[in-house]
Amino acid sequence: MPPLDLTADVLTLTRALVDAPSVSGTEGPLADAVETALRGLSGLEVLRVGDTVLARTNLDRDSRIVLAGHLDTVPIADNLPSRLETVDGEERLYGCGTSDMKAGDAVMLRLAGRFGVPGAEPARDLTFVFYDNEEVEAVRNGLGRVAREHRGWLYGDLAILMEPTDGAIEGGCQGTLRVVLTVSGTRAHSARSWLGVNAVHGAAGLLATLSAYEAREVDIDGLHYREGLNAVRIEGGVAGNVVPDECRVTVNFRFAPDRDEDDAVAHVREVFADALAAGVTLEVTDLSGGALPGLSEPAAAAFLAAVGRPARAKLGWTDVARFAAFGIPALNYGPGDPNLAHQLGEYTRVDRLQPAEDALVAYLTENDRDTGSNA
Amino acid sequence: MPPLDLTADVLTLTRALVDAPSVSGTEGPLADAVETALRGLSGLEVLRVGDTVLARTNLDRDSRIVLAGHLDTVPIADNLPSRLETVDGEERLYGCGTSDMKAGDAVMLRLAGRFGVPGAEPARDLTFVFYDNEEVEAVRNGLGRVAREHRGWLYGDLAILMEPTDGAIEGGCQGTLRVVLTVSGTRAHSARSWLGVNAVHGAAGLLATLSAYEAREVDIDGLHYREGLNAVRIEGGVAGNVVPDECRVTVNFRFAPDRDEDDAVAHVREVFADALAAGVTLEVTDLSGGALPGLSEPAAAAFLAAVGRPARAKLGWTDVARFAAFGIPALNYGPGDPNLAHQLGEYTRVDRLQPAEDALVAYLTENDRDTGSNA
Repeated sequence: MPPLDLTADVLTLTRALVDAPSVSGTEGPLADAVETALRGLSGLEVLRVGDTVLARTNLDRDSRIVLAGHLDTVPIADNLPSRLETVDGEERLYGCGTSDMKAGDAVMLRLAGRFGVPGAEPARDLTFVFYDNEEVEAVRNGLGRVAREHRGWLYGDLAILMEPTDGAIEGGCQGTLRVVLTVSGTRAHSARSWLGVNAVHGAAGLLATLSAYEAREVDIDGLHYREGLNAVRIEGGVAGNVVPDECRVTVNFRFAPDRDEDDAVAHVREVFADALAAGVTLEVTDLSGGALPGLSEPAAAAFLAAVGRPARAKLGWTDVARFAAFGIPALNYGPGDPNLAHQLGEYTRVDRLQPAEDALVAYLTENDRDTGSNA
Repeated sequence: MPPLDLTADVLTLTRALVDAPSVSGTEGPLADAVETALRGLSGLEVLRVGDTVLARTNLDRDSRIVLAGHLDTVPIADNLPSRLETVDGEERLYGCGTSDMKAGDAVMLRLAGRFGVPGAEPARDLTFVFYDNEEVEAVRNGLGRVAREHRGWLYGDLAILMEPTDGAIEGGCQGTLRVVLTVSGTRAHSARSWLGVNAVHGAAGLLATLSAYEAREVDIDGLHYREGLNAVRIEGGVAGNVVPDECRVTVNFRFAPDRDEDDAVAHVREVFADALAAGVTLEVTDLSGGALPGLSEPAAAAFLAAVGRPARAKLGWTDVARFAAFGIPALNYGPGDPNLAHQLGEYTRVDRLQPAEDALVAYLTENDRDTGSNA
């Protein structure tokens, strides 16, 4: 791919990133281009870890902000190269990864280009993390690898994950727990079904419990979180003439960040207490804790003021939880539209791009926060 | 394979058949051997239809008995060649197809050898049907093909299907209906589940109905039938983080032969009336009517007397229904054990073989039923 020009405007830069396909696992060429561009900025220290590229200023500022964005996208759905279209007077850039999240990556590269050069005087030190494999299983996640192998690089007073939030700050994230509930029965020929015990029929109570469940809503740091308990899969059946001896229900619990992982598991066990007492088994297959919004932390409060829009709760799980696990306040903030992520018709509104860059520039240059020795 | 010797005893003949593998679709060599053996009997007219072999006497008797047995087996499970073993004093022939149903085929071949020669004077005309592809989808069934292409060959006063019944007469068969009930919902990300409608939760009522269903039992011609309504499959789920928009429950209704196909569908629709009214859809995917036992028909009553054991109801669906559909009384009678069919450890009791042959010989030679011109 052609070299990235960090002096180009944020729309041009977004298009250049989008037109470099980088489905999870194939981020190499794009990571190379990002690395080359960053190494061209003499005010930055650069580290390459697999297909993740990190860069940071070392200006001894009082505070450090970590900006993180993943380079990968979900599979391309015949929606590349990018195209600009005006719909109902709204200018849009269509294409795989526009919203999730190359528009955010482009804003980060613009900031690197501005603050990563000698003589630039950001009010805070900056760390940039462009990482791979966010859209696939957690074990491949590039940010996770950095957390394991180069944890020092993730230190900071605030982490901003540039996931699509439509230009609003989304604080924290909810946790997610997945359990498989297994109902057992006894196999039999369906022509002599009374010799068996039908495990699918035996799941009636589980589904009734799920159907009647009332999800909790809770306010934390002024943000409104809403939990949910849902069957996301059900499967049972041996053959068209056999009474099934097993029925498996996969349940996903999305929990507000005032519960920790253990609380979440205990709650789900309590919800299904009758079924568990009757012999249904419960296996935890996936568990990721949430992240408290932490918006009262000074670095976060200042950013909130710079953006100037009310914050809201992040309901889905995001990589902010990786920072929260280290005790680093983290929030989601990006120009993309979260509702368009992973859609065939994915696009980003052009008029969201420059304001995102501007808000971050304002935040990173405000002098009242700059109490470092270089001020 | 070596030629079949129809003068060998029924155990030897059973072993010869079992040791000629004939999994559904590969019956050719065994059908060839059966055809060759039958063509060697000058008292029989022989017809080959695909891998089905038919043979009949044409003695102008007042009544005709059709004996039918399939040549195919379920897949071999490392249980060939056959082996004789004595367990707890019981002599058993182990191997794939011993019980279902080469022991029955061997009895048929013995009868062909006895009655298919000039000078033999059976009290009834005989038709033998050795057919292919019974263990697989109905459309491939050799008996079905004969019914479509050579229906005249299936005419008779009584059909005896030599499926395993442990030497008892099993009358008629129950019908089987399969429907797919589909619950619809609205897909949503499980982190914002209130934006969706969970179709799996929506199946709670269906499972409760199935769980509470009380199956009917009914006596017909002195035989006791027992119905059953069972979920045999349930499936729903898009991904681990998505509220499912569809849940499909496959339900199998086994119905006594006093209901016809339409009654069976109407009954199932009535059972799920509330769900159907609420928008659940029902699709019939499989429907085979049952067969009334017809044991009061003269030819059947005489056979009942010859066997000398009480008859019982056949609960599973069998090919007797193909004869019943033509108005021909049909029953199941064979030396194999129905509980061992399709099992790895399939065997047939050796002491069941000769009595089965003897009962049929007695039935086919009894003079009080023979009022034909050749008597």
